[in-house]
Amino acid sequence: MSSDPDRECPVDGLFLELNKLTFVKRGQLRLEHNGHRAGGIDQQEMVSSKKSAVLVDGVILNGPTTDAKAGEKFVEEACRLIMEEVVLKATDVNEKVCEWRSPEQLKQLLDLEMRDTGEPHHRLLELCQDVIRYSVKTNHPRFFNQLYAGLDYYSLVARFMIEALNPSVYTYEVSPVFLLVEEAVLKKMIEFIGWKEGDGIFNPGGSVSNMYAMNLARYKYCPDIKEKGLSGLPRLILFTSAECHYSMKKAASFLGIGTDNVCFVETDGRGKMIPDELERQIWQARKEGAAPFLVCATSGTTVLGAFDPLDEIADICERHGLWLHVDASWGGSALLSRKHRKLLHGVHRADSVAWNPHKMLMAGIQCCALLVKDKSDLLKKCYSAKASYLFQQDKFYDVSYDTGDKSIQCSRRPDAFKFWMTWKALGTSGLEERVNRALALSRYLVEEIKKREGFKLLLEPEYANICFWYIPPSLREMEEGPEFWAKLNLVAPAIKERMMKKGSLMLSYQPHRGKVNFFRQVVISPQVSREDMDFLLDEIDLLGRDM
Amino acid sequence: MSSDPDRECPVDGLFLELNKLTFVKRGQLRLEHNGHRAGGIDQQEMVSSKKSAVLVDGVILNGPTTDAKAGEKFVEEACRLIMEEVVLKATDVNEKVCEWRSPEQLKQLLDLEMRDTGEPHHRLLELCQDVIRYSVKTNHPRFFNQLYAGLDYYSLVARFMIEALNPSVYTYEVSPVFLLVEEAVLKKMIEFIGWKEGDGIFNPGGSVSNMYAMNLARYKYCPDIKEKGLSGLPRLILFTSAECHYSMKKAASFLGIGTDNVCFVETDGRGKMIPDELERQIWQARKEGAAPFLVCATSGTTVLGAFDPLDEIADICERHGLWLHVDASWGGSALLSRKHRKLLHGVHRADSVAWNPHKMLMAGIQCCALLVKDKSDLLKKCYSAKASYLFQQDKFYDVSYDTGDKSIQCSRRPDAFKFWMTWKALGTSGLEERVNRALALSRYLVEEIKKREGFKLLLEPEYANICFWYIPPSLREMEEGPEFWAKLNLVAPAIKERMMKKGSLMLSYQPHRGKVNFFRQVVISPQVSREDMDFLLDEIDLLGRDM
Repeated sequence: MSSDPDRECPVDGLFLELNKLTFVKRGQLRLEHNGHRAGGIDQQEMVSSKKSAVLVDGVILNGPTTDAKAGEKFVEEACRLIMEEVVLKATDVNEKVCEWRSPEQLKQLLDLEMRDTGEPHHRLLELCQDVIRYSVKTNHPRFFNQLYAGLDYYSLVARFMIEALNPSVYTYEVSPVFLLVEEAVLKKMIEFIGWKEGDGIFNPGGSVSNMYAMNLARYKYCPDIKEKGLSGLPRLILFTSAECHYSMKKAASFLGIGTDNVCFVETDGRGKMIPDELERQIWQARKEGAAPFLVCATSGTTVLGAFDPLDEIADICERHGLWLHVDASWGGSALLSRKHRKLLHGVHRADSVAWNPHKMLMAGIQCCALLVKDKSDLLKKCYSAKASYLFQQDKFYDVSYDTGDKSIQCSRRPDAFKFWMTWKALGTSGLEERVNRALALSRYLVEEIKKREGFKLLLEPEYANICFWYIPPSLREMEEGPEFWAKLNLVAPAIKERMMKKGSLMLSYQPHRGKVNFFRQVVISPQVSREDMDFLLDEIDLLGRDM
Repeated sequence: MSSDPDRECPVDGLFLELNKLTFVKRGQLRLEHNGHRAGGIDQQEMVSSKKSAVLVDGVILNGPTTDAKAGEKFVEEACRLIMEEVVLKATDVNEKVCEWRSPEQLKQLLDLEMRDTGEPHHRLLELCQDVIRYSVKTNHPRFFNQLYAGLDYYSLVARFMIEALNPSVYTYEVSPVFLLVEEAVLKKMIEFIGWKEGDGIFNPGGSVSNMYAMNLARYKYCPDIKEKGLSGLPRLILFTSAECHYSMKKAASFLGIGTDNVCFVETDGRGKMIPDELERQIWQARKEGAAPFLVCATSGTTVLGAFDPLDEIADICERHGLWLHVDASWGGSALLSRKHRKLLHGVHRADSVAWNPHKMLMAGIQCCALLVKDKSDLLKKCYSAKASYLFQQDKFYDVSYDTGDKSIQCSRRPDAFKFWMTWKALGTSGLEERVNRALALSRYLVEEIKKREGFKLLLEPEYANICFWYIPPSLREMEEGPEFWAKLNLVAPAIKERMMKKGSLMLSYQPHRGKVNFFRQVVISPQVSREDMDFLLDEIDLLGRDM
């Protein structure tokens, strides 16, 4: 079809009531099916048994046009394919992590174009197979590239259910179960933070949670901003560690605060914010006439996995009357481990916490909560717009369960349900085990790196990020001067290219704050074993030993 | 487990290498399975065949701890349940749309609590069954409550695939297929808008798309805001119709512009923005020293389904040098119909368009694109934060495919894929048919409402929103004075309560701009037939005739 707006439909305005169906315009109607399952009669019978078939604008309106039986069969076949090609292969280390093709090659291999006419089911299933084949297997035991990995069977089931039920969580009337589940999960997470009560909301990503927190802190600082905006106000300023996630900059820019008004506080050798530096910068900002309103501490930084000293930072926030937000998107899951929760010591003093169960706890992308200590309905006050078509006040049930007005979104996915299902399946003890195991594996890897020639730790990790260089034989005798670092900088990208083309594993590399390219290994999934750690080092050595 | 931070793990710091596995601490380890499928040997064999079992911090690190076989079986059983209880029942009008329970009752019926120990699989499957039972069947042919409905088998398969593959679309290296699919879908949508080229991004909701557009327009107006923020700038002001979606207010507040700086332009009797009023308000704002930067037109308003006159609004925007954003979240899908695309006449003159295929085109929540006419990389300039751990510039492939820095999110779901699959399956002609059929059914319903006693149209609709009152027998002879309206206001909520408790259908009601509570019927799904329209009116009459 062309997108010419002036091309007219040939049967415009036709509105007929027919006692017998005599005319079916091809392309306008496909009555391939007996219609509602309830009927159980075939198409001819159905049409003639109706009191009258109705044709409006060239469209016959009796019975549905979808071929439900064929559609259901297609879903069943596709599910089988997904089980065989994705779920059953997820734990198989003999499968490739990725089947690398360049963008140009992949465009040739995939039939991406959308056409006037549709494709038959068998062709669609081939397409599905291609999509799976060339997609990265993020649930493969040797996918270590991001802060998520692995396959959790329970959250996967929850995710399938969500997709089949297709809910949106804004009102109790359309999402009764999922709203109650969200409430229960938030309550439990709040308990692990150590608050007596609180509020919260699940968001599409930790970046969005951080934005929510920044806006809440700003609202608390000056509620009038909601209506009046920032015009005429002093320069608002916030503080975060130099190792924080880049979403803090994005948030400051999006919220009209400006990236220049994000003060990056220096960190120590392990990537932790230096409290004295924070306080110095707050004084400095005040002296310059700016208005500090927020400190963001990070529990589990993206690259180094560092944890800011929350207790000392909370002291400073108290002294200066500043909102303390803790970005625990990555590190928050340590709260479930009695052994490791000390990493977040003092988190209960935060005003808000971002925590993503889709990372260490494998709830599936995305599953991200913002938790708020305040119980005066701050989220609702800050975010509500009171749409009368959605949040009617004269409903027959308690409308305090219509929590959609706490959100910047209108439709919202029930992400809490994914985490809930895993929690139900494993119990708190099972979740704790996962965290403990991932961190034990990390420790094992660290010790192995220390033992092996050609591997060099960047720093002693606190969490599941293990940052290290691989030093190929040709560089091992070289002095660590500018030439050495320049050459070492090329090693990780070159090994990464080789591992992706081979498809044997995936882990990320990056330069970081003056350090040349190094690998960042991340351990998450319980499908990962000590053998995979050994393989990782063997494989990097194998891929890089001729460099 | 308690969340007491000081409770210590009993086996702290233990790091042993064992030649023979002799000690398994209960609760720390569950080696129920033979580990990696590749091995194919049982647990005892596996442990003893390894060169050495390793115990770190009380955790045995050899082999994975997940019981993959049991997990896979659970997924298979759950999939069967989902097929039977959700997918196969979706087209059955004899099923209930909802199984209403109050929040208090539902909390009793569902076992929501998360405990220390997990639940066995059979219990989890019962929980899944309960979740399905008490969830609203949004894919039921008689769910008309929101601007989404129905079951699209193709997008459903795409959604299952997404969940199984668990990708995040920010870099080509982790999401090669899905990034190319997004590019292809955006290109096609841009073609239907009528632009020669453009850019875009899929977002978690039309509200977020509207925020993106507002921020882009602001960036275009003054790029310095990204770094400097709004402090010290004149009062930015934007214009939108009085019938616009509430997300415009949310966006203005979130972005630091302030809701007072959203000027609501008056609409005509059909809910369309009055262009002369717009121009008058722009002059007025300038006179007051404010800085207009954006006009948002709506194509398909939420309640009335009205389409603003885009061509005339575009003229005004051109004259005043203002960014024109079209919120076509709901109405954009009309672009696929040669018959109905005239509703958006002039849309090609917009600077940005929000369009949600998850609504009329049933791509599943959420599937929402923001399309941008500019091709100077405005999205990237406005949103980039250049995180070096993700967007390394020394990768071995063309990093222009790493589009994640155009987004406010970090992880992002590949929502375009859901729409792509449906488009591939139906072709453009099949999508066009769906739109034509939904609007033909709407016309049918309108004519039926006009014929029936006790039903009164609010206004002649342009699109798939049919707004009407049901006037119960006791009010039919009453004069349309204050008492009549006060009584009529109570009717829709009372009927809604009855229909939900019966579970026979769901449609929404609302008061709106001086009009007392009325029903808003929305037609979307091709599973809906003329019989369902008749049922709707019969059922409302049945439920309300004693009022």
